[in-house]
Order: sequence, then structure tokens, then C-alpha cells
Amino acid sequence: CHLLKGKSTFTSFGVFFLQMGWGDLGAFGEPSKETPNLDQMAAEGMLFLDFYTANPLCSPSRAALLTGRLPIRNGFYTTNAHARNAYTPQNIVGGIPDSELLLPELLKKAGYTNKIIGKWHLGHRPQFHPLKHGFDEWFGSPNCHFGPYDNKEIPNIPVYRDWEMVGRYYEDFNINRKTGEANLTQIYLQEALDFISRQQASQQPFFLYWAIDATHAPVYASKHFLGTSQRGLYGDAVREIDDSIGKILKHLQKLGISENTFVFFTSDNGAALISAPKQGGSNNRFLCGKQTTFEGGMREPAIAWWPGHIPAGKVSQQLGNVMDLFTTSLSLAGLQPPSDRQIDGIDLLPAILQGQLIDRPIFYYRGNEMMAVRVGLYKAHYWTWSNSWEEYSKGIDFCPGQNVSGVTTHTKEEHTTLPLLFHLGRDPGEKYPLSFASTEYQGVMERISNVVQQHQGTMVPGEPQLNVCDKAVMNWSPPGCEKLGKCLKPPESEPKKCIWSH
Amino acid sequence: CHLLKGKSTFTSFGVFFLQMGWGDLGAFGEPSKETPNLDQMAAEGMLFLDFYTANPLCSPSRAALLTGRLPIRNGFYTTNAHARNAYTPQNIVGGIPDSELLLPELLKKAGYTNKIIGKWHLGHRPQFHPLKHGFDEWFGSPNCHFGPYDNKEIPNIPVYRDWEMVGRYYEDFNINRKTGEANLTQIYLQEALDFISRQQASQQPFFLYWAIDATHAPVYASKHFLGTSQRGLYGDAVREIDDSIGKILKHLQKLGISENTFVFFTSDNGAALISAPKQGGSNNRFLCGKQTTFEGGMREPAIAWWPGHIPAGKVSQQLGNVMDLFTTSLSLAGLQPPSDRQIDGIDLLPAILQGQLIDRPIFYYRGNEMMAVRVGLYKAHYWTWSNSWEEYSKGIDFCPGQNVSGVTTHTKEEHTTLPLLFHLGRDPGEKYPLSFASTEYQGVMERISNVVQQHQGTMVPGEPQLNVCDKAVMNWSPPGCEKLGKCLKPPESEPKKCIWSH
Repeated sequence: CHLLKGKSTFTSFGVFFLQMGWGDLGAFGEPSKETPNLDQMAAEGMLFLDFYTANPLCSPSRAALLTGRLPIRNGFYTTNAHARNAYTPQNIVGGIPDSELLLPELLKKAGYTNKIIGKWHLGHRPQFHPLKHGFDEWFGSPNCHFGPYDNKEIPNIPVYRDWEMVGRYYEDFNINRKTGEANLTQIYLQEALDFISRQQASQQPFFLYWAIDATHAPVYASKHFLGTSQRGLYGDAVREIDDSIGKILKHLQKLGISENTFVFFTSDNGAALISAPKQGGSNNRFLCGKQTTFEGGMREPAIAWWPGHIPAGKVSQQLGNVMDLFTTSLSLAGLQPPSDRQIDGIDLLPAILQGQLIDRPIFYYRGNEMMAVRVGLYKAHYWTWSNSWEEYSKGIDFCPGQNVSGVTTHTKEEHTTLPLLFHLGRDPGEKYPLSFASTEYQGVMERISNVVQQHQGTMVPGEPQLNVCDKAVMNWSPPGCEKLGKCLKPPESEPKKCIWSH
Repeated sequence: CHLLKGKSTFTSFGVFFLQMGWGDLGAFGEPSKETPNLDQMAAEGMLFLDFYTANPLCSPSRAALLTGRLPIRNGFYTTNAHARNAYTPQNIVGGIPDSELLLPELLKKAGYTNKIIGKWHLGHRPQFHPLKHGFDEWFGSPNCHFGPYDNKEIPNIPVYRDWEMVGRYYEDFNINRKTGEANLTQIYLQEALDFISRQQASQQPFFLYWAIDATHAPVYASKHFLGTSQRGLYGDAVREIDDSIGKILKHLQKLGISENTFVFFTSDNGAALISAPKQGGSNNRFLCGKQTTFEGGMREPAIAWWPGHIPAGKVSQQLGNVMDLFTTSLSLAGLQPPSDRQIDGIDLLPAILQGQLIDRPIFYYRGNEMMAVRVGLYKAHYWTWSNSWEEYSKGIDFCPGQNVSGVTTHTKEEHTTLPLLFHLGRDPGEKYPLSFASTEYQGVMERISNVVQQHQGTMVPGEPQLNVCDKAVMNWSPPGCEKLGKCLKPPESEPKKCIWSH
């Protein structure tokens, strides 16, 4: 069978992981259909309609993808306040704990060469370096490229090649914040093509994690793509990424290794509507966006591509999660997931190769709180919140133009005794809660309550990593800075509780 | 060239015209992708991303399609109040004026046989009968199938075969309002297949207007499709229509006439969000729905299919309108549009066959008012209104879950001196009006003002047909009623101003 055929030699993995909304691809109904390469990838592979990220924010989702575990388990959350989103800015003290086993660490034992291109985001202090957690190569940055832009008080974010920094954003790797011009995606593309060529030449299986960030504000595109989209600068960035992915897939085909390479495209959170329309994407008709546990915050575009194994043009309604890439990749490599800890990701191969539908819930966490759960087509909200009135009154809106009474609330609303229930088939936009009195509600909630009880009853949260911030841990003098004359003097250490406002 | 090849024998026309939202098709990003046949039609033909109806309501759009003229010209509007939607309920006195030239009337002169299957909606008094306006055959009803359901005071809507009624809804043609079961779509399908077979046998060119209504509330599907959709009853109806369209296209192919038949699929208005989620569809991320001049009310799914002529898998960003089907069909039949009147529809063949982009505006009318205009990617709102506070407070909401401050207003807002301007590429959801002070705004509005001035300066409105209502004109005793024993006695004539509340 196909699966065994794949194993008989080896299977390499490519994961494209970036910030894009469900509605940003032509294949997912973006109204100007400007992603011909991703649409082609879907036409040659499998389109997932019900695929989720593990968190409505970047760092925790990235930690979940690489550990196969919910952020509440792997530590990528905060307990500084209830149900708050947190990530890894450059003053964060925490990062990926040594006790976590990352996908590249496990694949390495099976002879894989692993490369991360782009944003790491699992901590930037020395012990968190991706090459200490299973990656063999890295080109990219430890933190996001939004700010500082050239603040002499705070170091600009470094860009690393492997162990050492090779420059800083806005100094050596510029993004023109006025025009949005930057050639970074082209550099990331070249890195990917080179790495794949080298692996093919050496006949080594590989894991390539292409974690680029051109669609994250400040959005950027290279000169050739600027002004080419109907959608403005954001669309230019999408078009460049689409073009790059097309080139990477064609490269695999040209090298004759596409049938030995399992490729997956998905996103770390929903489109950031707060940056829309110029710097943010689209979540189609789903409610709200990034930062929220509504569908717009966590349902993601997803495509699996593996010519000769995945039949062309399949559409799957399997409930999937980025954490599944961990377990699925291990399965393809002939490895078992670690048995000494709870793994939340499942092996999607039966869904991908045999079209099975595996019954499994999706949990929607915001920080330390399970806000919602999806079972089958039903989603129950145990807590609803968009953001505080205080933030909202300053113009910070995670649901622009959308307002579902009692749902997109600006006070945190607890519904744990009587969850708000939606049928995502009839009502993917979460606009029409089911009547509490209906027999449908009662039957469904009985089933969901069991799932939640099982989940919460056995949950052992990990040590929260996103509680403490300290200016002293910033990227003052990353390794390699002395060669570039870019070492800065850190201030005194002054650890503080990080402030997470939503 | 293809065009001449098409003309050298003859080209038949099929138009599928029904109520469905832009977001209801898999090809347009419906989140459960349940329209494999329509998606296949798009993959074999041309998908229009920027196609519009002429009005956010059924009757006027249908009049516009068949006359190639805006409702304000052909009379399908009201002057009883400003900017009110109006249609043809069974107490309407007006209908399609004899002075209007309908597509089938013109095609008939070129030897075409014309059939309408389904909802006519251009008036039900004897002079408005479709067989008096160019159609040769009819199976369907003059009015909508929503109400009356079995009210002894008001006649149920008749179903006609050609000149005579053959029964009434809910009496002879039942729709189970509890389960949604009805076999009407199957009957309409069979009518279409039979008609096509007969035309093929007689080697006659034909125009088939398949104007079915299963997705209009009360939504229905036949037993085989009930409960098969993730989307509930509405999805069941969509699946049955999708299946039927697949069967009609396959029938054309089987008979060997697909290369001689130009087929178009589109919708008469956006999804009726007021009926969602159980009885209404989806407008993807577009704002609001049916009854409004926002994108959700008037941007429609559209597919052109003509194997051997339209290259497979094309996507067009040509601004199109249902009125274009009039002019395009005439062009294909080698006929000229009437020169004695203003025709609003344009010939889309250069866009369909040569991929040209024709610069033309789209006008968004609500009743007697031009509410908005689209030029290129820009849309300017001259008036905004969803519905009145009075209606809204009763729960009538055309924009459920959506609220764009100053745009989806419940008071009618005039912006004629300073129109609200949106860029539909960056912002297809009409959520972020451009700043009045921007140079972008000023440059664009100069161009748009010229278009509007030209349009309004030369506009001669037709005699409004939707002003007068009279219980006496209802379907008391349609022709043929005596054979069925279904004649009812009309009351005295009492003409009144029709009340149009939104």
C-alpha cells in the first residue's frame, strides 16, 4: 500500500507554517483568488476544511506543533491573569523547556536532518536555541519582526544563521515600513531550495520547517510583488508566499523526490483582523480573528500534499490540529510518539490515506482557560470574550464589523454551567446559539460534557513559561554579535510579571 | 475562432437562475464544500468573482435578466416610498410591460424554442403570462411558494403547465413545512431533461431558463437529499440543486450538444441572512444579505460553461451583471440588442472568450434610488440603509452578527455629497471606509462622480409597476382552474398603494 511504499525508502517532511487566515486562499474562497500555487497544491493533494491551530496566538501554536502537545501542557501560557494570550516577546524569560521533546529531536534519532527557516518563537535565551532542540540548521529570527524598528534603547531583533546572529532586522535585514518592501521571503525561499538540493544530493531524509512571516504586520513583499495584488500590501505578501511555495513544490518534483516528501501547509492562528485590511487577512465568514477562540481565531487553512500517496483533489472534513503534524510525522518516519507524557496530536494518516473520519475533540484555549470545545459539528463555548472594554474603547477590536450579542463580549462571560452551543455546519459563523431548551441542545451537551470532564479531569498543566519578563534577557549580545560589532550592553536584571492585556 | 464556430451551427442557452449566496458554493469557499457538480462546472468553465445581480430582490432581478435593463427602466420598482424594495406578491397589479422586449421574444425570431421552468415572477395577471412574452413552454409558478399555505381566504399559488394551471402549492404540489420534504426540484429537473432531449431530437436551438426556488424559504428538498448536508435543510436543498445541475450538464454532453450550448449559473440576489442558518445561505465575508445594496445583497456566484469554447478552469474578474446575459445571448445568436432603448447589459463574450477586461460600472439600486456604484475595485455608497429601527426592533435583521458603524445603519443615511468609499480588493467586507481626506479618496471619487453624473443625467425611469396592490388580482381563478374545480371567487376590486416596509 501507499503508506508502506512511503516507508520503504524514507519520507521527508516539509511544513509551511505562517500566519494566514482560513479565507486567504482561493481554494478557501478568497474573493480575488490570487493563490494559484496553493490552489494547485490543494488540487494535487488534500484540502482540510476543519483544521485548527492549538492557540489563537503564534508562540503557543508553534510550541504545540513541535511538541504535539497543548500549550497548557508544554508551558506556553501564562497564569499572570485568567484566560490571557501570551507569547515570546524579546523580554520574555521563559521558552521551550528542556523536558519537552520536539519533533526534530525525535526525527534526528531516525537519521533526519532538520532545518528551520524563519521565526522560531520558542524563546531566545541560549538554552532555548533551536539547534539545542533538534534542529541542525536555522536561518531566521527568534522573535517577531514587529518592533523595535531602530530604537537605541531596545535591541532590534537578530537574524541567525545556525548558532550565530548574522545581523539585525531594520539594520542588516531591512523592511521598508513605508513601502512594505523587503526581500526576506526571497531569502527564505532560496534557503529552502538550497537545503532541499543538499539533502537530495546526500540522499538524506529531512524535515524542513518553513516558518516565514511576511503576512505578519508589518507586512512585507519584495519589489517584484509590490502592487501586484488586488488586496493591497497584504495580498502582495500572500502572492509572494504563494509563488515561493509553488517553487518549492516544483523543486521537489524536479529533483524527483516529491513522492518521498510529505508536505503540509497551515497557519499558526487566524487572520489578525485588527491589522486588516492593509496588514491583515481574511477568515472568510468565520467569527472574529487572531487572539480569540471563535472560529476566525483558530480554524486554519490546511493542505496536505504527497504525490503518489494522497490522491489528487481530495477534500477532508477530518477535525485536525497542528499538533497532529507531530504524531503524523513520527508515524510516517516509523517512530512512536513518547509514551511518558500526554500527546494531544493524533496520527492523521488514516484520514489522509484512507479517507477515514477519526472522532476527536478540538479544544480552544486562551492562556490557562479552556474557552470552548468542538465535538463533531458542534462547538460549545464555556467562556466567551473578545477583549476588555478598556482595550476596545481604545480602538483595539478583534472582531471588526462583527457583533454577536452575548458572544463577542467585552466582559469575560462564564457559561460553564450552560455553555453556548453552535452547530458549525448550519452556522459556521457562530451567530445563532442553539436554544437551551431544545432536545438537540440537551442531547449534544451530554456528549460534550463527558468529553470535557475527561479532558479537564486528567489535565496536568505544565510550568507556565510566559509569566516573567526581564529587559536584561533581550537580544543585547546574541552569539556572533562581536564579529559584527553589534553587541549591546544589557541592563541589570529586573524580573517582573509580564503584562498580558488580552 | 471559437465564436464563429459556435455561430456556424447554432448556440442554445441554458440559464440556471435561483437564490443562492456568493458563499454557498465550494468553489466560492463554502466551509463544507458540498457542491461537487457546480465546482466541476466551474473547473470546466469560467468562474466569475465579481458578478452582480441588478437588484437585491427577486422579481426586479428577473425582469432585469430578461430585458437587459435596470429595474428602474423596465418598471420593476416602486415610487410609493424612497428606496424601498418591491416585488410581485399575488396582489400586485403590475407586471412586465408589453413595451419591454424580453430575451425569449428576440430569440424566437431567430428560431429558438424557449422554456421557463420554475418561478416567473414578472406578474401573474393574464397579460403578463410568460407565453405572451416570448416563452413557448412553462412549467412553474407565477409567484413565490412562500405563503399562503392553506389559507381559505387567500388562494394558494398556482403551478402552471404552459397556458393553464395544473394545481396549487400545498394542495397538489406539497411542501412539507415541518420536514422540508418536497419533490419539486426533481420535477423541475425532469422537465429540463425532457425539454433538452426534445430540442436535440428536433435539431432546434433553445433557450432554457431554469428558475427554481428550493433555496428560497420555505426551503425544501426531496426525500433522497433530506438530512444529507452538514448545513441542515438549506444545505440539503443546495445539494439537490447541485446534483440536478450536474445531471443537466451530463445530459447535454451525452446528447452531444454541450459544445453548442452556452450555460450560465447565477443568482437573483444574495443569501437571505434573515432566514439563516436553517433557511438561508451564505455570502462568504461580504456584508449583509438580500434586501441590501451591500456586497452580500448583490454580489453573486456565477459560472459560465461552454465546453470547447470557454477554456477550462478560467477565473474572471470582469465586472458582470445578470443583465449581461441578455446582450451576451443575443450576440451569440447573431442578433443585435434593440436600438430604440437603453440596454444596461453588455456583451460579455470578449471577457469570456478572449479574457478581456471591459471597464464598466455596476449600479446598486434599491427601489427608485441609486444607493451605490462600483467602478473598478472601488465602491461608493451614496446612500446607506439596512432597514428601519422599527423593523429591526421586531427582530428583522438583514445583517445578523454584522455591524459596521455608520454603514449598516437603521436610519437612511444620505452621503451624496461625500460618498462612503471602499476598496473591495483590500476590503471586500465593506468594513473600512477610506478617509475623505486621502488623495486616494479624492482621485477615485472624481472618476466615480463622472460615471454617476453620466448615469443619472440620462436616466429616464420607466412607469413603476410595483405601486398598486389589489386583492382582486390574486390567483383566484387562473386559466384551467375550472378543469380542476379550483376556481375561487375574486372579491371586489379595491386598488391600494402597496406597502413596502424596507
